[in-house]
Amino acid sequence: MKKALVLSTLALLISGNVCAKTWLLTSAESGVEQGNWQVTSQQLKIKDQTFSIEQKVLHGGKQEGSKIITINSQNGLTITLSPTRGMNLLRVEGFGVRMGWDSPVKEVVNPAYMNLESRNGLGWLEGFNEMLVRCGYEWTGHPVTADGQIYTLHGKAGNTPASQVSVDVSEKAPYEIRIRGLVKESTFKKADLQTEMELSYIPGSNSFTLHDVLTNHADYAHDYQIIYHSNFGTPILEEGARFIAPVESVSPFNDYAKAGLKNWQTYSGPTKGFDEMVFNFKPLADARKETVAAVINKAGNKGAAISFNTQQLPVLTLWKNTDTLKQGYVTGIEPGTSYAYPVTIEREQKRVKKLEPGQSTRFDLTYTLLHNASQVKDVEKRVADIQGNKAPQIIDTPIAKE
Amino acid sequence: MKKALVLSTLALLISGNVCAKTWLLTSAESGVEQGNWQVTSQQLKIKDQTFSIEQKVLHGGKQEGSKIITINSQNGLTITLSPTRGMNLLRVEGFGVRMGWDSPVKEVVNPAYMNLESRNGLGWLEGFNEMLVRCGYEWTGHPVTADGQIYTLHGKAGNTPASQVSVDVSEKAPYEIRIRGLVKESTFKKADLQTEMELSYIPGSNSFTLHDVLTNHADYAHDYQIIYHSNFGTPILEEGARFIAPVESVSPFNDYAKAGLKNWQTYSGPTKGFDEMVFNFKPLADARKETVAAVINKAGNKGAAISFNTQQLPVLTLWKNTDTLKQGYVTGIEPGTSYAYPVTIEREQKRVKKLEPGQSTRFDLTYTLLHNASQVKDVEKRVADIQGNKAPQIIDTPIAKE
Amino acid sequence: MKKALVLSTLALLISGNVCAKTWLLTSAESGVEQGNWQVTSQQLKIKDQTFSIEQKVLHGGKQEGSKIITINSQNGLTITLSPTRGMNLLRVEGFGVRMGWDSPVKEVVNPAYMNLESRNGLGWLEGFNEMLVRCGYEWTGHPVTADGQIYTLHGKAGNTPASQVSVDVSEKAPYEIRIRGLVKESTFKKADLQTEMELSYIPGSNSFTLHDVLTNHADYAHDYQIIYHSNFGTPILEEGARFIAPVESVSPFNDYAKAGLKNWQTYSGPTKGFDEMVFNFKPLADARKETVAAVINKAGNKGAAISFNTQQLPVLTLWKNTDTLKQGYVTGIEPGTSYAYPVTIEREQKRVKKLEPGQSTRFDLTYTLLHNASQVKDVEKRVADIQGNKAPQIIDTPIAKE
Repeated sequence: MKKALVLSTLALLISGNVCAKTWLLTSAESGVEQGNWQVTSQQLKIKDQTFSIEQKVLHGGKQEGSKIITINSQNGLTITLSPTRGMNLLRVEGFGVRMGWDSPVKEVVNPAYMNLESRNGLGWLEGFNEMLVRCGYEWTGHPVTADGQIYTLHGKAGNTPASQVSVDVSEKAPYEIRIRGLVKESTFKKADLQTEMELSYIPGSNSFTLHDVLTNHADYAHDYQIIYHSNFGTPILEEGARFIAPVESVSPFNDYAKAGLKNWQTYSGPTKGFDEMVFNFKPLADARKETVAAVINKAGNKGAAISFNTQQLPVLTLWKNTDTLKQGYVTGIEPGTSYAYPVTIEREQKRVKKLEPGQSTRFDLTYTLLHNASQVKDVEKRVADIQGNKAPQIIDTPIAKE
Repeated sequence: MKKALVLSTLALLISGNVCAKTWLLTSAESGVEQGNWQVTSQQLKIKDQTFSIEQKVLHGGKQEGSKIITINSQNGLTITLSPTRGMNLLRVEGFGVRMGWDSPVKEVVNPAYMNLESRNGLGWLEGFNEMLVRCGYEWTGHPVTADGQIYTLHGKAGNTPASQVSVDVSEKAPYEIRIRGLVKESTFKKADLQTEMELSYIPGSNSFTLHDVLTNHADYAHDYQIIYHSNFGTPILEEGARFIAPVESVSPFNDYAKAGLKNWQTYSGPTKGFDEMVFNFKPLADARKETVAAVINKAGNKGAAISFNTQQLPVLTLWKNTDTLKQGYVTGIEPGTSYAYPVTIEREQKRVKKLEPGQSTRFDLTYTLLHNASQVKDVEKRVADIQGNKAPQIIDTPIAKE
Repeated sequence: MKKALVLSTLALLISGNVCAKTWLLTSAESGVEQGNWQVTSQQLKIKDQTFSIEQKVLHGGKQEGSKIITINSQNGLTITLSPTRGMNLLRVEGFGVRMGWDSPVKEVVNPAYMNLESRNGLGWLEGFNEMLVRCGYEWTGHPVTADGQIYTLHGKAGNTPASQVSVDVSEKAPYEIRIRGLVKESTFKKADLQTEMELSYIPGSNSFTLHDVLTNHADYAHDYQIIYHSNFGTPILEEGARFIAPVESVSPFNDYAKAGLKNWQTYSGPTKGFDEMVFNFKPLADARKETVAAVINKAGNKGAAISFNTQQLPVLTLWKNTDTLKQGYVTGIEPGTSYAYPVTIEREQKRVKKLEPGQSTRFDLTYTLLHNASQVKDVEKRVADIQGNKAPQIIDTPIAKE
């Protein structure tokens, strides 16, 4: 087995159209499984960029057997994701900035040790520490018991080990790196939703892109929901940090958030007893339906921006969890098809989408780590341009009651 | 560790009475654990048959760490089972025919990634793709909440890793191969039901036999139930395929199945919206209580037959899941002690059996892959002989309401 | 990977203050993971004691991947614990006596295969076979549905793999051995209770000590509960065996236990249909709040004693499970902060403790294997001294109703 793995590491495949090298790290179908694995720009005889891509098997506690893949670009970003946890992004670092946060959950919890049904459907919280969790696709949102079952918090994709994982490096400058994972939500009689997730990164750059294609492989139409739960703490988040996005309207998620409605665009420092406030937005977009949302620090020289398409992801949730540092001082910027209400409410309010048999839908998001004032200004200008002279409509009342 | 495993692979034991070679692949008690392992007829210096027996550890997605054992008989059957999934049989192939089916669940799901309680007790469906699942033994049937707990769909045995697994090859022609597994349902205060499962196969033949011995190791009497959930799709199942069995009576499982009662002996092709119809039978048997049930293709030259004993397995369920190919086009022929009703109904109707302290009971089933018209005719004749001139009684009304 | 592990085995660290050798066997933080591992007194060039410490990875059934660590002292005790199961102690043997018992659960069940929520919160019983399970710390006691969630039987710590495990051997006589484990109950928004567990043993001796430090790493105060569920069967437990402890009062746990109140100090032999009787005690202690409880055999020459501090562990539960041998003939001596009632009752009756942010609390218990009449007499004398001339108050009525 070990030998076979080593061989397949060496077996570099040439994919015809883009002239890239491909490594298959995991394949349930063909039985491939790399454990610890690495490739470097040096091995690839690339001289004008220095980078490595490494897979590592983690151990200890509830992360026993979890795998992480790290792209390390010497003059760019270090991006860490976990195939075992549904290709979730753990953290992205570079240029002295970090996208991600510090959860009290420190381990990359292997879903084998998770029970999503525990804590009345809040079991998901026992593994939550990522910069990005894809919350979906069979369902998402706050847990609810309906149709006789618990719809657990934020669905299952983020706690489903990827069935197929591969790494691609383009042989020509700018040496685009792609990490692909296939996450299956396949249950006899219930669902056959499969998502091909791709992260694409050009070494040296300060942004990366996700291209996710969700396909309903069943012969029946199936509902789906997705929230790109993207989470940022220090050093971007701080007292006086700001949330910016072009929006048609903003409303508080629940009664508790009403008190924070006026200040939806600014953040408090770590605040004991704050817990969390959530706001729902209808985002505005440009003519191509492209838009952007960002959190930027007080000085305006650090930030994290997410570009997305409102045809793909029509709603936006802002999660202000400006609790103390130890509790998890973090804000979530969450483009989605749904708000974080339980699926029952999302259904009532017609935000649950449907895929016909064989139909696919895609989600493309670009995450940019902003590390100087000029980059921050560019995003602010983009937000202002899309916003134009429409003032955001402030709606006092939550659109739903859990 | 690796070295120790290799050594124990070489340590072929001679079991006295049958002059067979035995390999211990897994033993919780003695700490033995083979990973990938193989033995071939060539290694055993057997010349008049060509076969191999191989254990493989699977990887990727939710099958990470699952083991499968494959018997490959060059001029006979290829039988694949999974010790990790309670010795369930995944598929049996040979003579251009396949016993098994295509579930949307493609992976051999490691029970570590299962939550049987999820989906209100239907979590079992997240791993269901086998040709045979033993549904039991602590309970079986549709899920129900009773006595304050969920009795999850079809019990736990099929999602319990075997505690002890061994392979036996007789040194003399016809070189009988036996794969044995021990599956424990042992819970302090609750149950100590242990099942020694044996699959026996003679290389080159078109049938194999299961010999399962269930023992109540507790000092108190304990209920048990078992359904041998045996599932067949293409190429046997097709429009015009037929179900044959000598039966005293047939009744629809529920109101939905009433509509299909008249045609209980024939199958539709893949039919969108069909979902499933289930029929309950009282099987007839010969003087030795032996009987047979089979599904045969339209042309009458392919089929799968199950011989069983009605003293051991007094009832028979027919599951017609002639939904589309992608959804899982499949029929279940399910000899059992119980029908598929929840344990509460099975108790009321006195089909739940009991084992006294230390008592054992056995279940012997022979599965035959029918690959020509003459074999099919033999089974048809056997069915007709047992049926004699009694007409099956058609009962219009379900015997129970879930 | 394998190589790295071997190297770190050799990398003996000198910890400054006690001049001990330390081996890091598991570290989620630094990615260290030893598989099978051993160190012997011979390797350490220790001549006046013969001992070994070994870690072993178990396989088969539901113990696949579980680790155990065994201290084997040639003229002392053999102590076996499992890092995978929250540092629980499986059994302690020596001097012809055994502390531990025989559960129908034989495997060291990997928590990956557990579902604590199953059986209406009694899933814990599927893995219970230890001499000591730490029942806590987020909650403990009988299961109850409250605040919309199931508080599962005896909490999660005993089914949580340790995040960090190390072994320490003092380089000077008496060569104290310490095994340390860190068990985290860290859930975003819910809890960040972490327990540093230490077992300390001097080779050749007949006792060992647990030093557990529980810390609330959250920024909010958090409840905790703990029961040291310590379990003893044959050869100590037998008809005529006695439970001794200095107590202020004893009361039956429930109505069923009333019948056994008179004989709380003696045990029956294995008794079919006995099930279990539970008694609640307020223990007496000496001026330093130290006390002891013990079970001793009929002849008074074998026993197991637990010394603890009533400021740390103010209440004591006696669990008499003198059912048949196969069912698990066992008594639990359970010092704790709580009785075994559901957390709801423990809260009402003010036994649930609280830790302020950053606050730690410690629990120190010494377990002594008594292997001759003189040792038993010493414990009896200690109990009598603490009891003095106060007679235990016999309270007829349970203090609570489940």
